[in-house]
Amino acid sequence: MAVFGLLVVAVLTILTPFAQSQTFQRLGACPTLGCVFPPDLTDFLAGQYFDIRLEVHAPVNGSEANGGKADPNFTFTIVKKGGAPQNAATFFNVPEPKLEQWNFTWNEDLFAAEAKKPSLVNVTSKAYRRVVLREPGEYTATLTYYGGNKTTASWLVRDLNKVRKAKNVVLFIGDGMTTNMITAARLIAHKCVNGRYLTKMAMDKFPVLGHQMTHSLDSYITDSANSATALYSGHKTTVNSLGVYADSSKDPFDDPKIESIAEIFWRLTGGGVGIVSTAFIADATPAALTAHTRDRGQYGHVVDTYVHGITNYTWTNWTGPDVLFGGGAEQFYPGKDSYRGKDYYKEFSDAGYNVVWNNTAMQKTPNNTKTLGIFSVSNMAKWLDRNVYKNNLLNQSNSPDGKKTDATDQPGLKEMTLKALDILDTRHRNEGWFIMSEAASIDKQMHTLDYDRALGELLELDDTITATINALRAKGVLNDTLIIVTADHGHGFDVMGSVDTKFLNEQKTDRAKRGAIGTYFNSGLSQYTVETNSSLRYSEGVHFPANWDPRYSLFQGVSANPDHRENYQVHKDGPRLPAVNITGFPATDFYVNYKDAVTGFVINGTLPVEADQGVHSLTDVPVFAMGPCQEKFGGKSALLPPSKTRGAILDGTTGVYNSIDIFFNLAECLGLSQTTP
Amino acid sequence: MAVFGLLVVAVLTILTPFAQSQTFQRLGACPTLGCVFPPDLTDFLAGQYFDIRLEVHAPVNGSEANGGKADPNFTFTIVKKGGAPQNAATFFNVPEPKLEQWNFTWNEDLFAAEAKKPSLVNVTSKAYRRVVLREPGEYTATLTYYGGNKTTASWLVRDLNKVRKAKNVVLFIGDGMTTNMITAARLIAHKCVNGRYLTKMAMDKFPVLGHQMTHSLDSYITDSANSATALYSGHKTTVNSLGVYADSSKDPFDDPKIESIAEIFWRLTGGGVGIVSTAFIADATPAALTAHTRDRGQYGHVVDTYVHGITNYTWTNWTGPDVLFGGGAEQFYPGKDSYRGKDYYKEFSDAGYNVVWNNTAMQKTPNNTKTLGIFSVSNMAKWLDRNVYKNNLLNQSNSPDGKKTDATDQPGLKEMTLKALDILDTRHRNEGWFIMSEAASIDKQMHTLDYDRALGELLELDDTITATINALRAKGVLNDTLIIVTADHGHGFDVMGSVDTKFLNEQKTDRAKRGAIGTYFNSGLSQYTVETNSSLRYSEGVHFPANWDPRYSLFQGVSANPDHRENYQVHKDGPRLPAVNITGFPATDFYVNYKDAVTGFVINGTLPVEADQGVHSLTDVPVFAMGPCQEKFGGKSALLPPSKTRGAILDGTTGVYNSIDIFFNLAECLGLSQTTP
Repeated sequence: MAVFGLLVVAVLTILTPFAQSQTFQRLGACPTLGCVFPPDLTDFLAGQYFDIRLEVHAPVNGSEANGGKADPNFTFTIVKKGGAPQNAATFFNVPEPKLEQWNFTWNEDLFAAEAKKPSLVNVTSKAYRRVVLREPGEYTATLTYYGGNKTTASWLVRDLNKVRKAKNVVLFIGDGMTTNMITAARLIAHKCVNGRYLTKMAMDKFPVLGHQMTHSLDSYITDSANSATALYSGHKTTVNSLGVYADSSKDPFDDPKIESIAEIFWRLTGGGVGIVSTAFIADATPAALTAHTRDRGQYGHVVDTYVHGITNYTWTNWTGPDVLFGGGAEQFYPGKDSYRGKDYYKEFSDAGYNVVWNNTAMQKTPNNTKTLGIFSVSNMAKWLDRNVYKNNLLNQSNSPDGKKTDATDQPGLKEMTLKALDILDTRHRNEGWFIMSEAASIDKQMHTLDYDRALGELLELDDTITATINALRAKGVLNDTLIIVTADHGHGFDVMGSVDTKFLNEQKTDRAKRGAIGTYFNSGLSQYTVETNSSLRYSEGVHFPANWDPRYSLFQGVSANPDHRENYQVHKDGPRLPAVNITGFPATDFYVNYKDAVTGFVINGTLPVEADQGVHSLTDVPVFAMGPCQEKFGGKSALLPPSKTRGAILDGTTGVYNSIDIFFNLAECLGLSQTTP
Repeated sequence: MAVFGLLVVAVLTILTPFAQSQTFQRLGACPTLGCVFPPDLTDFLAGQYFDIRLEVHAPVNGSEANGGKADPNFTFTIVKKGGAPQNAATFFNVPEPKLEQWNFTWNEDLFAAEAKKPSLVNVTSKAYRRVVLREPGEYTATLTYYGGNKTTASWLVRDLNKVRKAKNVVLFIGDGMTTNMITAARLIAHKCVNGRYLTKMAMDKFPVLGHQMTHSLDSYITDSANSATALYSGHKTTVNSLGVYADSSKDPFDDPKIESIAEIFWRLTGGGVGIVSTAFIADATPAALTAHTRDRGQYGHVVDTYVHGITNYTWTNWTGPDVLFGGGAEQFYPGKDSYRGKDYYKEFSDAGYNVVWNNTAMQKTPNNTKTLGIFSVSNMAKWLDRNVYKNNLLNQSNSPDGKKTDATDQPGLKEMTLKALDILDTRHRNEGWFIMSEAASIDKQMHTLDYDRALGELLELDDTITATINALRAKGVLNDTLIIVTADHGHGFDVMGSVDTKFLNEQKTDRAKRGAIGTYFNSGLSQYTVETNSSLRYSEGVHFPANWDPRYSLFQGVSANPDHRENYQVHKDGPRLPAVNITGFPATDFYVNYKDAVTGFVINGTLPVEADQGVHSLTDVPVFAMGPCQEKFGGKSALLPPSKTRGAILDGTTGVYNSIDIFFNLAECLGLSQTTP
């Protein structure tokens, strides 16, 4: 057993993963053979419910092989700093969980994957459900296995102010939105004279700016499920996981859960909850407010949790948000995509919801009733198609009733958000409310390299922010409301100059077409704000481009892409499809879409050929804050001297902090720290 | 003349440039035929010296042709708001300038350039030299030409607090540094456990964070000359311009000048000035502190201005900085690259400077004397070569004495900056001092797609910041010193995942090699911080990668590039050359450098084929501030209602502001607003 002694870790010791565990990992956040979730260096809100999952691994083959017999006799203790360790069941006053056993396989690297030589791991496990820590301070959780090996997790219950400072919270998430994109959106929608903007973005004018670091628990690039979990629960987890840590079992619903801010806020205050997104509503960013599964693809299940809460393991008493607005009708009308084939319009209606299917009905529906608004199949229409290239709304067969007509009367993010505010304010003026409003297709259109549509979505978010501030002021609740605008991760997008599209279109060769690009001085001035006789003007006083198709367009791009062709011109016929599989099904080998950007030149991909779209990036993303507690979201402390204490990794005290700090700041501002039952 | 009536503009009217003036412009910031520099919407520091240039244009041919006879009888008046307009010579109490005449050509677009059909413009002009506005408030400058056409410029002298709050200023410029790069540098140099960094960058810990918008006067992508001019003088100008607005004359030295913060600070306080860069010291970012030319390529002239000030038009009485440290010996030893072939080591020595050529001599030189330190020909060695791949310092023939031996004893940015602080503190403890310290090769190595070297430079900057704070604290002047860390523009860089370099190197085809890239969950954890037996460890407690060449490297890239090959591995043999001209001289057609990254796959370029390297990008860049006045550099005001007044474009009141606001904030903090002679 001596071999395992080397793997024992202590509090704050650096966990050095095996060098080969990178592209694939045996289990995220578990470099040793004994796994504790929540893992080392986890923080908790006092009174936040969570599950614990323990696993002991016995690799049968591969570089870690130890005989393959997983220890069934492991023990697990908890101790608050200064106390005496207790068996966890005693500590939490819950029954000792039953022992579970399973196995799984993984590939140690790409060579193993290519050779189809996975490693098999046998597992023994226990899970403690719905436990809670209330007393602020440091705790140590210790898993002992294989007769003396230990995996130790240092946990901290943050000592937060319990006085509620904000009555309401508006959390705007620009999915995938970076500082670079905001800069580009400003350029095409705000007039600039001699290097000085005459107007700025609404978010530019927020009084507090910060940056948040978006890394996952176990990978430095996150997806939206994982990042939303961090923002809503204060717990970083694994790609594709919603409100849980990912364990190694096959069941996507048995992973250890973490209570979200929506669940805590509703449980403690009875306040209102609104969920608004331009995505299909089962998508990750809205889903993470109530769903708990390691597989974000369980869309039907996600919709079920919106209205019924988590039913597995009887974990919460959630009864549904006040407002749920978005796309994704295919998970609502009965059929193959809805949970167990059921009619979720009926499920919501039976639970007391009004159900609306278009903007007209949404505007008319009363504000005193819970409301479900589903406005299209799949993701909702993009701002650019709803407002400029309107013909693209036709022949979509995406009506929310499932009858395959066209969803031509869809609201935008602004209309949905304003209506949601009306309902929340009507129903919960006294208790207060929390709303998450997501501009989902910034991310979705960046993925497909449709930069114009992505920037249109970003400008719609900014317009929504302005409208929200005005609406809250009109309701008299602006000063009681904390407004946060942030993102969940980035894309490697930027603008590097201009393109003379007339010149580009007339050149005959790919290399000659590149001569149309103007950099530095030759980037010139934005032509998107120049009004012409044929201006596609959205409306006066609202900041969108006057012309989406100027001769001199943006030379814009991302830092990783599939094979595609680029002509730097707006895609007038609808959202872009940059790459296609021309080698048969299943599609694992994507090439340039020969129908896309036909006047352009070919750009070969850098991503694996299985990728048909761009990917997320590493960059810190901005946080804009205004309202009560705004100062928590930007730097205000003096430069701290180096510290060896746990406090040194509490990142909320300067302008650059961890994504989980957003959750803790929101929770503190709402007075959700509950140190007594 | 009616045709010109259409071109008349009034204060705050939007100037709509001709749609065709984009890739090329007749004259930046002059869409009409009458040009005033400083142009409309210019702000001034009270007491800041500047020149005025007027031009009247008469296009001979092209779309604007008006007969080709430029008006010699134009008039120019100035009025402070509420007063009566006066002839400018009277207003400023200077002699009426003599009339100048010239002509120039430009291309209306790429088709005209390709057809070699430029447009000819005749010009009449006057220049008022070294004038000043002292009284805060709004002024209107009006050029009247062609018998009644008017070009009007609204000028504002900002009403700033005159009380000096900071004794000293340290301005760190990470050339080309973006938030994305800071995120990547943190990832490779700081240990992260379960999504939480155990340490942060020095800049992360600054108490104030802001964003600055970097656009040029007349193009939305800037270069470092133009952006440095904005940061140092509060005036945005044109690409390639140092401390001047660019006029249309051929003389690169007759353009209208603007006094820089170094010149003003020295003139008003007699305080010390330090200039430190890892670039050749005539490069744009250091040069803009004292040089005034529209052509940043006048390197010899730039070096002359460091020691002699501007001699053309007898404009300042500058006598040289206290410290000037960097590379670029070729402009110092006598020869073809030095100004008029003179020996500038001797010029500096004659002006009272100690001259040092290596780190050892620099450390030993006394702190009570002005010091010139020139440590190499061209740009200085990169951190990665000085500290890890040291053999790359050999066979460079770059010794600063011009004798073509190797400059192997070069200081880094940290050593230069700390020595400069010693000299400044010794010589100017009473008057205070201003230092600009530039990490130049973040930008230079991003240009050549050598991401590892660029991030090494960024980490060296961060290390320098830590060392500076410690040094100022030790000297007892930390609380008197405002420290700003910012950039001058971006590059479209980001990190999107990891690369299994072993797998990549062993694949046979370009498409198969792309399969080595891991995104999302498969990005895994940073392997750069994992210490191995062969770790290339810089030193304990200082944050640089433990391993620059891990099997799993960063999948990193930029959003615009020349043709090149990529294998995502550190370039051990020295700084990278991604593209080469294989079609003869002059080089205007760049292809993949067949010697570079030979195990990688080809990525075709998106830039014009004349480009051998990457380019700058649009993105807002971060500003980190600590010390007196730090609050001016981050958001603190509540959301302002829309305003039609000039105040609405004063951008310094929230977290996102204009690059020129950096100058005004620094000047105010140093008490440099001088409203009386």
